[in-house]
Amino acid sequence: MGTESTATISARGANLAEVVEGFDLEEEMTQVEDFMQGLVGSPVMVISEPARHVISAGGKRLRALLVLLAARLNHYDPPKAVAVASAVELIHAATLVHDDIIDQSPRRRGLATVHSKWFRDAALVGGDYLFALSATAIARSGDIRVLDCLGRAAVRICEGEISLVGNVNPIDQALEAYYFKIGGKTAVLFEEGLKAAGVISGASETEIEALGRYGHNLGMAFQITDDVLDYVGDPAVIGKPVGGDLRRRQITLPLIYAADDGMSPSMRTTIDRIDDGAAPDEIEGLLTWVQRSVGIGQSQQEAQRYCQGACDALEIFPSSPIRDALEGIAWFVLERNR
Amino acid sequence: MGTESTATISARGANLAEVVEGFDLEEEMTQVEDFMQGLVGSPVMVISEPARHVISAGGKRLRALLVLLAARLNHYDPPKAVAVASAVELIHAATLVHDDIIDQSPRRRGLATVHSKWFRDAALVGGDYLFALSATAIARSGDIRVLDCLGRAAVRICEGEISLVGNVNPIDQALEAYYFKIGGKTAVLFEEGLKAAGVISGASETEIEALGRYGHNLGMAFQITDDVLDYVGDPAVIGKPVGGDLRRRQITLPLIYAADDGMSPSMRTTIDRIDDGAAPDEIEGLLTWVQRSVGIGQSQQEAQRYCQGACDALEIFPSSPIRDALEGIAWFVLERNR
Repeated sequence: MGTESTATISARGANLAEVVEGFDLEEEMTQVEDFMQGLVGSPVMVISEPARHVISAGGKRLRALLVLLAARLNHYDPPKAVAVASAVELIHAATLVHDDIIDQSPRRRGLATVHSKWFRDAALVGGDYLFALSATAIARSGDIRVLDCLGRAAVRICEGEISLVGNVNPIDQALEAYYFKIGGKTAVLFEEGLKAAGVISGASETEIEALGRYGHNLGMAFQITDDVLDYVGDPAVIGKPVGGDLRRRQITLPLIYAADDGMSPSMRTTIDRIDDGAAPDEIEGLLTWVQRSVGIGQSQQEAQRYCQGACDALEIFPSSPIRDALEGIAWFVLERNR
Repeated sequence: MGTESTATISARGANLAEVVEGFDLEEEMTQVEDFMQGLVGSPVMVISEPARHVISAGGKRLRALLVLLAARLNHYDPPKAVAVASAVELIHAATLVHDDIIDQSPRRRGLATVHSKWFRDAALVGGDYLFALSATAIARSGDIRVLDCLGRAAVRICEGEISLVGNVNPIDQALEAYYFKIGGKTAVLFEEGLKAAGVISGASETEIEALGRYGHNLGMAFQITDDVLDYVGDPAVIGKPVGGDLRRRQITLPLIYAADDGMSPSMRTTIDRIDDGAAPDEIEGLLTWVQRSVGIGQSQQEAQRYCQGACDALEIFPSSPIRDALEGIAWFVLERNR
C-alpha cells in the first residue's frame, strides 16, 4: 500500500490526504493536534476557549505536513518534528486571529472568528496566547536554532501584515510592495518552518538553505493562488463570495497585472482612489474587469513559476518518495481550487 | 567609589541609579538599550517607528537591571545577560502596547501610546512585533531553557491580562482573582526573568528556584504598590490623576481590603454595580472612601510582606554586595512614590 500511494503522490498535484496516508503520517498529524490542544492549559476560559476553537478549526495543516515530511529527508526525530510542526501551526493560528481583527472578518474556515464569537480583546489576547504557546512548543523541540528560524519568521510576518500595498500609488509601482507583503504574510513561515525541519533533522547548511528556498517558493505560489481564487474561485468551493480582497480595498497580483496590461482612464481613476473614495459600484466594475483580464492568467503563470522554483530547490536531494511528495505538494498548492 | 556606593545600596530602599553606578552596570544597561534598538531593523516605518518609540520611552528598566544583577551571583556572561535582559524588557514592552489598546489609554510614561499616536492596528501589530523581537533576543542568548522560562511567562501574562477581577462578585471573593491577575500581569515576568538569569549564569536548580521566588515576591510587591499609588500617590509625582484604576472599573487590593473591613449598604450597592451601572459620581464617592479606609495601610502591609518574602528567598546565597543590592531593590520597589 505504501508503494502504491507514493506512486500516486509523485504525480503532479498530490492530494494531501494521500501524502499523509502514503507516508504513514496519520499518527504524527494526530500528535500535532494533540500536542497543540495539550498546550492549552489555561484555567481562564476566555483564553482557553478561543484557543481551542481556533486549533479545532484546523485547516489544511499544510505547514505541519511539510515540516513532518521535510524532517524525514534526513534523521527523523518524531517528537522534535511534532514540536516544530505544532509551533509553526500555532504561529500561523496566532497571526490569523490578529489578522481577522484587522480585517474585521466575521468568519474563517466556516466558523465565527474569535473577535466576533467572543469580543475584540479576547481575540487580541487570544492571539498573543497562541503565539506564547508557540514559544512553549519551540522550547519542547530543545533546539535554540528553531527559535532563530521561527523568531525571524514572526518578525517578517508582522511586517507583511501591516504593510499596505494599496498605499502604493501609482499602481505601476505596486508589484514590489505586493511581493514584500506576501513574502511576510505567507511565504516566510513556510520558508523558516522548512528550515527548522532541516535543523532538527541534522540537515547540512546547503540542505537547510534549499529547504528554505523550497518553502519560500511554495509559499509565494500558495498566496498568489489564493489571490487568484479570490477573483475567480467557485464560491461554493472556496466557501465565500469572490472579490472579498478588492472590496476590502486590497490590491493583489491579478489587479496589478491587469492594470499593467493597460487600463481605460476611468479604470485608472477608480484604481487611484481604491484606498479612499472609490464607490462600491466602481469597485464592482473593477472586479468584473480584473476577472476578464489577462491578470488572472498571468498571475497563474507567476504562481507556476514559483512552484517550479520550489521543485528546483529540491534537486540537491537524491530522488526519493519524500522528495516526490514535496514536489507533489507544490503542484497541489498551485492546482487546488480552494 | 565602588565600596562607598554599595554601602549606600545595602541600606533599605536602594536607589536604582546608585545600584547601576555601584556595580558598574552603566555599560551593560546601555548595551541593553542598544541591543533592543538594534533589533528594530524593519524597513516598514509603521512598525519600526512605534517599536522605537516604545523602546525609547524606556521606563525604570527594573527588569533588565534585576537580570543583570542576578546573573552576577554566579558565572556572569555579559552578552548572554544583555540578551536575556533585553528579551524581558521587550516582552514587557509588547504587553504594555496591547494593554494600552485594551485600556484605551491615551498616554504612557508621559508619551502618547502607540494606538493613539499611530492607529489601533499599528499597536496590534507593533505589540506582536516587539514580542517577535523578544524571540530573537532569546535566540541570541543561545540557551533554549531561557525560552522555557520566558515562554511560560508569556502564557501567564496573557491569562493575567484578560482575567477580570471585576467580574468576581461579591467583592468578598475578589481577593483570589486579584492575586491571579497580578501574578500573571506583573509578577511572572519578574519570576521567570530572574530564573532565566540564573539559568544563563550556571546557577543550581535550588538557586534558580530561589531567584524565581525572589522575582515573584518582588513582582507582587511592585504591583500592589502600584495599585496603592493609584489611590494615594501624588499626581505630580506619578504623572497622572489618582483613581484611574477605579474609573476604569478595575478592582484592586485597596478596595478589596476596604470592603472586607465593612461597608455601608449604599457602598455595597455601588461595588456590586462597579462593572455595570455604577454612575461616575458613585465611583468618585467610592474613591474617596477607599482613600480614607484601612485598605490603603493593609495593602501597604501586604506589599511589605511580599518584599520580605523576596529578601528571604535570597538567604540561600552567601552574603555579598550583589545580594544586598537585590534586597535593596526590593525595598525600593516598596518605598517608591511613582
